[in-house]
Amino acid sequence: MALKKKPVTGMKDVMPAEMEIRDYCISVIKKTYAEFGFQSIETPCVESIENLTSKSGGDNEKLIFKILKRGEKLRLADAQSEADLVDSGLRYDLTVPLVRYYSNHENELPSPFKALQMGNVWRADRPQKGRYRQFMQCDIDIIGEPTNLAEIELILATTTTLGRLGFHGFQIRINERRILKAMARYSGFPEDRFDEVFITLDKMDKISLDGVKNELLESGFAAESVEKYTELFAQMESCADPLSFLEERLSGCIEPDVIPTLRQTVQTVEGTKQADFAMVFDPTIVRGMSYYTGTIFEIAMPELGISCGGGGRYDGMVGRFTGKDVPACGFSIGFERIILILMEQGFQVPGRSEKAAFLLGKNLPADQLTEAIRAAQNLRAEGKDVLVVRMNKNKKFQRQSLAEQGYTRFVEYTGEVEEQAGKTGKA
Amino acid sequence: MALKKKPVTGMKDVMPAEMEIRDYCISVIKKTYAEFGFQSIETPCVESIENLTSKSGGDNEKLIFKILKRGEKLRLADAQSEADLVDSGLRYDLTVPLVRYYSNHENELPSPFKALQMGNVWRADRPQKGRYRQFMQCDIDIIGEPTNLAEIELILATTTTLGRLGFHGFQIRINERRILKAMARYSGFPEDRFDEVFITLDKMDKISLDGVKNELLESGFAAESVEKYTELFAQMESCADPLSFLEERLSGCIEPDVIPTLRQTVQTVEGTKQADFAMVFDPTIVRGMSYYTGTIFEIAMPELGISCGGGGRYDGMVGRFTGKDVPACGFSIGFERIILILMEQGFQVPGRSEKAAFLLGKNLPADQLTEAIRAAQNLRAEGKDVLVVRMNKNKKFQRQSLAEQGYTRFVEYTGEVEEQAGKTGKA
Repeated sequence: MALKKKPVTGMKDVMPAEMEIRDYCISVIKKTYAEFGFQSIETPCVESIENLTSKSGGDNEKLIFKILKRGEKLRLADAQSEADLVDSGLRYDLTVPLVRYYSNHENELPSPFKALQMGNVWRADRPQKGRYRQFMQCDIDIIGEPTNLAEIELILATTTTLGRLGFHGFQIRINERRILKAMARYSGFPEDRFDEVFITLDKMDKISLDGVKNELLESGFAAESVEKYTELFAQMESCADPLSFLEERLSGCIEPDVIPTLRQTVQTVEGTKQADFAMVFDPTIVRGMSYYTGTIFEIAMPELGISCGGGGRYDGMVGRFTGKDVPACGFSIGFERIILILMEQGFQVPGRSEKAAFLLGKNLPADQLTEAIRAAQNLRAEGKDVLVVRMNKNKKFQRQSLAEQGYTRFVEYTGEVEEQAGKTGKA
Repeated sequence: MALKKKPVTGMKDVMPAEMEIRDYCISVIKKTYAEFGFQSIETPCVESIENLTSKSGGDNEKLIFKILKRGEKLRLADAQSEADLVDSGLRYDLTVPLVRYYSNHENELPSPFKALQMGNVWRADRPQKGRYRQFMQCDIDIIGEPTNLAEIELILATTTTLGRLGFHGFQIRINERRILKAMARYSGFPEDRFDEVFITLDKMDKISLDGVKNELLESGFAAESVEKYTELFAQMESCADPLSFLEERLSGCIEPDVIPTLRQTVQTVEGTKQADFAMVFDPTIVRGMSYYTGTIFEIAMPELGISCGGGGRYDGMVGRFTGKDVPACGFSIGFERIILILMEQGFQVPGRSEKAAFLLGKNLPADQLTEAIRAAQNLRAEGKDVLVVRMNKNKKFQRQSLAEQGYTRFVEYTGEVEEQAGKTGKA
């Protein structure tokens, strides 16, 4: 038999040291989000292929792991194309399943519905360092809340969680799709090419404002529009209050409540936050998914130069399932990235109890085996961790490797008369 | 767009009330197993198709959700059979992945290695009430421990966990594959038809001893063997100490240490257990999987008439990956069944904090919104659950439905002058 020892391409085995950190983070996340009234839910990892290819998933739809039909439904000889062979696939995000779930159970759920999902998703991306084809996502969503109370609570819940996981000095960078559009409208770009403008704008952090300007000109946009547009960004860079600047400048190109509401979101979060971070209005934030309709935000860790999650408002998406628009807003923590950072920082899970190892001699008489296990059981009843193992021939090496696993107390049951009561010692 | 609201056939959406119980059980299970020195690990949900079809999975191999090849590797036109189309599949159990994981990481892992796995598995079974095509398995395994210390610790860990989840009065029914074989050998059945005998024996609880006798005769086994075999079981039924009875009767047909070791396992567990259950030797336990080589056991809940998990020793399986036999023993809790029982019993998760709902009036001024959220944040910092929601027009209905979700304290922020400080009241 040629059995394969390695995991399938692009997926990974999680080792105990990482699992300990993952389990700890999951418990902090679940506890904190519960304090904000979020309720855990779960959907199957498998979704019907129609839902996965409904154009809600953007480029992720090209990366689906598709599942073969089974039994009589699989007609290989008649199959003209891939679509004839599959009926389902592994989910590539938790948003499509959430919206399906909400549509399916709307009448059983409170309104607004505050959902927490932690679950694996799969994408057949080109494998690369630190990115895997199976990874955990961690999403909170509020469905049915039209006001910025949703944004405020999502941002507070997420940042409180990050604070409890030991993160500080980070930023929540926030923008509004309607501000993005108003700026493009103000500059005179044609409405049907806004998305092209935003794709270029999204590269600002890599190619800088000059790069954006050149790329827009190369794309054939009117020089006047490009000038007007990039001038807005240049002016905001040196502006103490860019939101007020935009409010005045965009007057007439934007619904009058958009900027005041965004300002209130920022101020309310700043006035009630319980973690060390800053709210930053960033007019260059775009976020790729086309389903966003309002606020959009990202977690930036400036020290590490990376984003650790993001989200936004997607008021139109539930309506695609139900025919009735329901306001919705979500925030996703980059769980795998958080774990990677904690691993690299040598994070130690707090509050672990002292771990004891009971080492049993070879041929320990039955009564002493029972005695040793009973002692272990009594410590466990107090919540302590006790490993009971056979003593190795190389006792020194065994103790060393147990010490590396965090065992600090060692008790030997040798079965010899003079040591019958057990011998206690530190490594 | 014809989006599907229902989950795919045979899989289910988990509602918040069930998730709360699931999350609680997972935390109890992880905490308890950690006290016994088990380390959490995780493997990908997707395994290579070669490993899934290596004949370690018994009938489960017929139930695999297979995953289509992608990109250039998928050659539909050239495909002769299903096997040409797929390269992987969803795992149907956690044992095959564990053995692959151990083979892959043997040098990085302690010996013995005590693993805890909690994860979903998938089987394309015919859908039926209470059985789903995606379900969680919860396995502990000890790899590298040849003595019955493995069995003792597995049984104690599992039963302590069940006790902490509120189960009592249950049984661990235990048997030995070598006793099964010795009984068949003693009765004169041909070695190459032992498995047939055991498949019939496995039906004892449904068809009784007479049924077993008839079925064996119908299968064409020698009447003398069938008589001798069923006589053994009949005698044990009225026997105070069936293990000693067998030890005497099977002498010569079985390695001399098998029964004394099993007896020691039973006695040590009985002498150190910290949950309300009984160890019961049950010579009719068979367990389907062909990979078991020694002890086998099941959790029986006599009140409910069902089994809630099981396991056993499978010393040969690691060697199929590595070429080097390593002793291994595992115990699996029937997680979904446990959840089902707790749901049916109206289980309430213990230790939940008082939950408060802050109800915000329409058009609440900005300063009062901040005040309300700050008050919520302060309670959350103390670990309390606080939901902040907009007040509905039908306040009575809203309070009622919040009360049903477990909210016991209500605070209103109406924004009206005479109530500016907030109004507190019980529902």
